Amino acid sequence: MIKAGIIGGAGYTGLELIRLLLMHPEVEISVVTSRRYKGKPISDVNPHLEPFIELEYEDVDTKEIADRSDIVFVAVPHGSAMDYVPGLMAKGTRVIDLSADYRLKKEEYERIYKREHKDKDKERRKSVYGLTELHPEVADADLVANPGCYPTGAILAVAPLVKGVVGQSATMVSQVIFDAKSGISGAGVEPSETSHFPNLAENIIPYQVTMHRHVAEMRMELGEKVSFTPHVIPAIRGILTTAHVFLADGAEPQNNEIERIYKQFYEGKRFIRLRKGIPSLSAVRGTNFCDIWFEREEKSNRIVVISAIDNLVKGGSGQAIQNMNVMFGLNEGEGLWFPGLVP
Amino acid sequence: MIKAGIIGGAGYTGLELIRLLLMHPEVEISVVTSRRYKGKPISDVNPHLEPFIELEYEDVDTKEIADRSDIVFVAVPHGSAMDYVPGLMAKGTRVIDLSADYRLKKEEYERIYKREHKDKDKERRKSVYGLTELHPEVADADLVANPGCYPTGAILAVAPLVKGVVGQSATMVSQVIFDAKSGISGAGVEPSETSHFPNLAENIIPYQVTMHRHVAEMRMELGEKVSFTPHVIPAIRGILTTAHVFLADGAEPQNNEIERIYKQFYEGKRFIRLRKGIPSLSAVRGTNFCDIWFEREEKSNRIVVISAIDNLVKGGSGQAIQNMNVMFGLNEGEGLWFPGLVP
Amino acid sequence: MIKAGIIGGAGYTGLELIRLLLMHPEVEISVVTSRRYKGKPISDVNPHLEPFIELEYEDVDTKEIADRSDIVFVAVPHGSAMDYVPGLMAKGTRVIDLSADYRLKKEEYERIYKREHKDKDKERRKSVYGLTELHPEVADADLVANPGCYPTGAILAVAPLVKGVVGQSATMVSQVIFDAKSGISGAGVEPSETSHFPNLAENIIPYQVTMHRHVAEMRMELGEKVSFTPHVIPAIRGILTTAHVFLADGAEPQNNEIERIYKQFYEGKRFIRLRKGIPSLSAVRGTNFCDIWFEREEKSNRIVVISAIDNLVKGGSGQAIQNMNVMFGLNEGEGLWFPGLVP
Amino acid sequence: MIKAGIIGGAGYTGLELIRLLLMHPEVEISVVTSRRYKGKPISDVNPHLEPFIELEYEDVDTKEIADRSDIVFVAVPHGSAMDYVPGLMAKGTRVIDLSADYRLKKEEYERIYKREHKDKDKERRKSVYGLTELHPEVADADLVANPGCYPTGAILAVAPLVKGVVGQSATMVSQVIFDAKSGISGAGVEPSETSHFPNLAENIIPYQVTMHRHVAEMRMELGEKVSFTPHVIPAIRGILTTAHVFLADGAEPQNNEIERIYKQFYEGKRFIRLRKGIPSLSAVRGTNFCDIWFEREEKSNRIVVISAIDNLVKGGSGQAIQNMNVMFGLNEGEGLWFPGLVP
Repeated sequence: MIKAGIIGGAGYTGLELIRLLLMHPEVEISVVTSRRYKGKPISDVNPHLEPFIELEYEDVDTKEIADRSDIVFVAVPHGSAMDYVPGLMAKGTRVIDLSADYRLKKEEYERIYKREHKDKDKERRKSVYGLTELHPEVADADLVANPGCYPTGAILAVAPLVKGVVGQSATMVSQVIFDAKSGISGAGVEPSETSHFPNLAENIIPYQVTMHRHVAEMRMELGEKVSFTPHVIPAIRGILTTAHVFLADGAEPQNNEIERIYKQFYEGKRFIRLRKGIPSLSAVRGTNFCDIWFEREEKSNRIVVISAIDNLVKGGSGQAIQNMNVMFGLNEGEGLWFPGLVP
Repeated sequence: MIKAGIIGGAGYTGLELIRLLLMHPEVEISVVTSRRYKGKPISDVNPHLEPFIELEYEDVDTKEIADRSDIVFVAVPHGSAMDYVPGLMAKGTRVIDLSADYRLKKEEYERIYKREHKDKDKERRKSVYGLTELHPEVADADLVANPGCYPTGAILAVAPLVKGVVGQSATMVSQVIFDAKSGISGAGVEPSETSHFPNLAENIIPYQVTMHRHVAEMRMELGEKVSFTPHVIPAIRGILTTAHVFLADGAEPQNNEIERIYKQFYEGKRFIRLRKGIPSLSAVRGTNFCDIWFEREEKSNRIVVISAIDNLVKGGSGQAIQNMNVMFGLNEGEGLWFPGLVP
Repeated sequence: MIKAGIIGGAGYTGLELIRLLLMHPEVEISVVTSRRYKGKPISDVNPHLEPFIELEYEDVDTKEIADRSDIVFVAVPHGSAMDYVPGLMAKGTRVIDLSADYRLKKEEYERIYKREHKDKDKERRKSVYGLTELHPEVADADLVANPGCYPTGAILAVAPLVKGVVGQSATMVSQVIFDAKSGISGAGVEPSETSHFPNLAENIIPYQVTMHRHVAEMRMELGEKVSFTPHVIPAIRGILTTAHVFLADGAEPQNNEIERIYKQFYEGKRFIRLRKGIPSLSAVRGTNFCDIWFEREEKSNRIVVISAIDNLVKGGSGQAIQNMNVMFGLNEGEGLWFPGLVP
Repeated sequence: MIKAGIIGGAGYTGLELIRLLLMHPEVEISVVTSRRYKGKPISDVNPHLEPFIELEYEDVDTKEIADRSDIVFVAVPHGSAMDYVPGLMAKGTRVIDLSADYRLKKEEYERIYKREHKDKDKERRKSVYGLTELHPEVADADLVANPGCYPTGAILAVAPLVKGVVGQSATMVSQVIFDAKSGISGAGVEPSETSHFPNLAENIIPYQVTMHRHVAEMRMELGEKVSFTPHVIPAIRGILTTAHVFLADGAEPQNNEIERIYKQFYEGKRFIRLRKGIPSLSAVRGTNFCDIWFEREEKSNRIVVISAIDNLVKGGSGQAIQNMNVMFGLNEGEGLWFPGLVP
């Protein structure tokens, strides 16, 4: 059994790690931290976890967490994760960081997140960006920077067109607009103006329409041709990304060619489902799948690609576990291979 | 034009007063207070009110509010209203208090709300409980204690059966259970655990299932035979009250007799709609109506009465304006006579 | 491996059986029928099931279904199930019927469902009412009549008080009102006026307020002292039942006594969770749990008991699988032992 | 008083016309037709309209409707409106058609709506496209083709940039993507797969992602540079349009210049609210306003413009009444000048 520790187990990301790891046949949760709930049984604070977990929330130091774990999931906000990662790695524990702290280059991080990166060995650590389908080097990583929820849905939607496959020129795409719609759980467990039911119900709320920080990850993977506008919808889970892809001059791929590119690019990737019909959030609810579908606009240079993920699973904790599986040589889908909650 | 002041104009009750008074042909809003937003244009803080109101939020003393107003709506939380009411009345201004501070007898209030009543002339003031349909003495009141949202829907649902009409014994009812379901706007404008979208969506939340404070108002009007259990539903506005009415021994009213009692009791009451079918929240959305319907259980001593109101209108600000209309000799429906927002 | 057939696999009940059985380690789905979708791959019609099931919907006769199955789940509407059950049983196949056709006595069924019961051996079959916690005789049954969704939540909520435990008089309860609130998935997969989003959103809809057919099951298990009023809430899954329990004269149980009764009654019942706080639908979402909590009203003869279930799992397909586990001597929780989808 | 007839008064568009016209001080509803509900009191079928309208639904011929009306609103589906319009106009009655039948040129209409246009005088009639803010010629029209809901929100969002103002080159824009999110009421009063609560709740549904018919209206007004992708969100009312506007080479407008263009373009247009913050659906709920806001992406050629309307009011019946006001020389806002239902 793999002993897995969770730093920050009271937020949605931490809770989803617990929910999923409890169903994982090869993992035992070894320690879960929370300063706020220190000493309280986890299933008292979160009644949906009764009677599945007998642990209490703890507030122990990094060294001890490392000692008790083969792998540690860091599920604290960006800016805090870098307080833990160096200590964990110094002890030789493998780490999956679900915050933004190890996703970008140091300068880019400091510019985007407007704070100094406190880990002075940041660049030396060779963190791998844990978009599993695109980064097989996860297998050998000691530190995985788990992608943001929006970048996961966005990058997976268009990577085949942007990055290309064997026998295809990579210049097919000139520009991409990601217009994303997310459930509110992405904003976290703390009540806010946006999550206040009377504000969100019967509404849809665009925010940071040209300046959301996640665009940096998208550009890191796809290049500068990418723009991003997020919205919050009145739903708990899920991100539906509408990618408006503009083709480069001269590119006039037929539908079957586009289909071939996607199939080839994602061959063997079990959590990518190329769809015959328009994806919906319900089919991925509670699961690690990314559903993808496209339609080319007739007489135009636009392809619309739609992707759907559960922001807390494929867009967060599920992908983290998928990465753990790859890191430990397990079947990629171990503990994650079940259908969505429909209806 | 009646000059109306509003103390506490940034909460849902205050905002609904503004929305409705702006459509009232006989009223001019004279002053709106808010400590938090002092100095800010009301329509900057609340974009839905642009360009209908040019006032700014103010933080002025009670005396000045009284000087500038013929009537003042006090829309602050219970415990705070009694800081304003004595000063307003000392200046001869009529007052409608939307808090609980003047609804109950002093001892009852202090017991239920667990605080001392600071207005030492509380009992002398002869506040009228402003359930307009049941209390015609509102017309002559200087101080109206506007009912709570739950009591409005509950009391109106069963008053005919409990209080009786001419030619009917009042002992028809032995016990009443009010099982009420409310939209979350009743909990106010501040985000909370309960109003957090991921907690309320796809859920229904019972709370204070035997001890909600509003039961005191219900018992004041209907007697001790009343019990009350509230729930919050994933909706913004509205209260649907399911009243389980148990008949006294020997009472075996036929449907047409019950119907006659309701019609007689509410004759001429324009905002009570006795319905042929089951009421819904949508038909009263945004309006001052109370829709009522009943069904007698065959071979049993139970009548189920359903009432539907908009908690912010008939259950709050609309009823306050209805009371104002009555106090100033206007048509009861002035400014409130429009259909609901369906769908 | 147990070979399980499903008759009626395109409705919500059938789909939930598929979803759950796919995660069951001891079961192989052998045949799934649907006249409407005959010949279509199940995962084409229901994309959330891709790639978990390779079967197509079939339209084969009862005899063949029986031949290919060790157990058959009948998930067609009441009135249709009795077309299949005799044929299945004639072949010696064990049956779990999720419709109402075998829950009540013949006369009661015909009166309530206003149709003749076509199975002339109905009474001889000795179907067991499959409320697993109350009917251990499920273990030996060849035909289980799986309970209705409302009766499951209602009966489990108050059975300890009504039926009593060793050392307790069973006369503690004089009357019970079940005021239930259900997600709309209980109304099935077909669009209707009630399920039309603009009608249900921002609303709550009472229906059949004194005459819902499920009350017959409640009375069968609990006696005539029971009344029932259902509502539909704007949510997909879940039933929250508010039971208003009136105590018999002289019964004055203290909280710790009530708690003791519940604990004793449900000892060893893994899917009953007696709660310290008010239950919510989210903690049971997607699971087979029934969460129960109570509060005694001070100075009154009322106990309010709240129960929460997922109508499609414990209130339907999950309980059916729980029954199957018991019938086949498996661990009661096999395939059903996972936490709810929160948030 | 203007006598207004409504053909097709049982759908959402017709009902919203009734709701709004009942509040209009200069209008009397003269006749409302519905084949389905012929002979039934309108307020029996639609309880929210009680006791505001005493009319029954009628099924009378076009000639009689014309005789009894100064203006007729045609609120039947496209393809049916053209059955009524010629007869109404032959009688000299002014007409506002809320269907698509008179919005496009005959050939375009027949191509897009895949049906023959039955009105052989279609082209001669000189219908005016009733986007009031852009077409002052509405004032003199006998036939107004009221715009589609999506085109209203989309065209108003970007018209200033595309069409330009005095002193501005009209070539500022090279391409526009409209990514629109609509409440489900736009799909009408009939239940469907899409409007089925379990399908839409906790979801967002893209549809006709490159081929929605409304794009033809957008191109008629804005040119061929326009693309359109609609989505349905789990909300009843409202359309939020996210317009991704790409600037022509060399165009580098500063924020204050863009703001100046919008202000100049919409000067005196009372129902356009240029916003300081991101618009939301709640601020326009139930109203005829179109809220608009923009943000220029730094270091890019994109401007994101957000518009919010109520699809049934500004996107339908409200705009129709606004057009009627202009046609009859009334104040443009008569009967429509009230704030939105917040929260």
